Amino acid sequence: MKGKFITFEGGEGVGKTTQLAMIRGFLESQGVDAVFLREPGGNPISEKIRDIILDIDNVGMTGMCEAMLYSASRAQLVEAVIKPALQSGKLVVCDRFIDSTFAYQGVARGLGADKIDMLNKMACSDIMPDLTVFLDLSPRLAFARKGGADTSDRLEQEGDNFHQKVYDGYLQACELYPDRIARVDCSGDAVTTHSKIVELLRQRGIV
Amino acid sequence: MKGKFITFEGGEGVGKTTQLAMIRGFLESQGVDAVFLREPGGNPISEKIRDIILDIDNVGMTGMCEAMLYSASRAQLVEAVIKPALQSGKLVVCDRFIDSTFAYQGVARGLGADKIDMLNKMACSDIMPDLTVFLDLSPRLAFARKGGADTSDRLEQEGDNFHQKVYDGYLQACELYPDRIARVDCSGDAVTTHSKIVELLRQRGIV
Repeated sequence: MKGKFITFEGGEGVGKTTQLAMIRGFLESQGVDAVFLREPGGNPISEKIRDIILDIDNVGMTGMCEAMLYSASRAQLVEAVIKPALQSGKLVVCDRFIDSTFAYQGVARGLGADKIDMLNKMACSDIMPDLTVFLDLSPRLAFARKGGADTSDRLEQEGDNFHQKVYDGYLQACELYPDRIARVDCSGDAVTTHSKIVELLRQRGIV
Repeated sequence: MKGKFITFEGGEGVGKTTQLAMIRGFLESQGVDAVFLREPGGNPISEKIRDIILDIDNVGMTGMCEAMLYSASRAQLVEAVIKPALQSGKLVVCDRFIDSTFAYQGVARGLGADKIDMLNKMACSDIMPDLTVFLDLSPRLAFARKGGADTSDRLEQEGDNFHQKVYDGYLQACELYPDRIARVDCSGDAVTTHSKIVELLRQRGIV
């Protein structure tokens, strides 16, 4: 693949949306030819799947159904958007990817690493991020900073215990894939975190 | 499980809808406490997934996305509907199940038996049909009888070659699971086929 693929991961309230906006501005200022995607979603079929996943009416959804919907959305995104973009030499930046499924469904929902690993491999075929930026902030600090959890979608409505498990899941992923996943401490202000991310992208030869 | 679980399989035009209506009438006449389901669907979340799968606008859907959507729908149906019904001693009758995914996505879409087998196992956990009725009619005869293919959903719009591969996939499934899957020749009229199915259910101790 001629292009590079980077993903951003983290729990609710760590400032992921802010950091993605800032890194988008930075990449544009540098004239980098980049594609920005979000999971679940990023193309018309995956956005329809996203609507089902996040719909607060679907409270009875099982963990396995949820994991398979994320994987279906990912399979479509990889083939229809990510592969063609990487083949044409673009930088692909994705808001969430396989590590979200590991942390949320594999660990927090308790489906287990083995099943999630199989689903992730099937969904990605031979595509893997060159770098994953894990925005590291404990749920306690994250929710204190944002003034409580959102209730706008089904997953953000989960309780404190769920979000702590998600965080634990991310830490496990960091241990499993230390070369791919870089932990970026987000306890400082947004500009400080942004500077760390830019430095990381430079170190890894992404920009 | 106290209840029994039977599934009906077959390609387009074999008369599956007719046979399901007839067997439903027969079971009602016998006072059997049965639940009738269809795949993909059978509960509110799975029906929403069904809408995405069959929507003719989603022409660019990859085979893996499709297989995972079927599996997500199945995972929800198994946990939310099939398991509770079997636990309460009901007979569960499902229009399509794992063998459809094997024939359509595994063989006709070319994803391969191994991946489909993993998805099916993850979706079903420990639930497996006690009996699968394969309505056996070649695509050539099936389409001749119904006067051409439907074009009402995305999968029925596929060409003759696709439907022949689906049929080949079903024959492979019959060879792999000879104890579970019973082939019922459907070349005769609907009443003849219905009689064969009733006889089969009696032989297997279902009714």
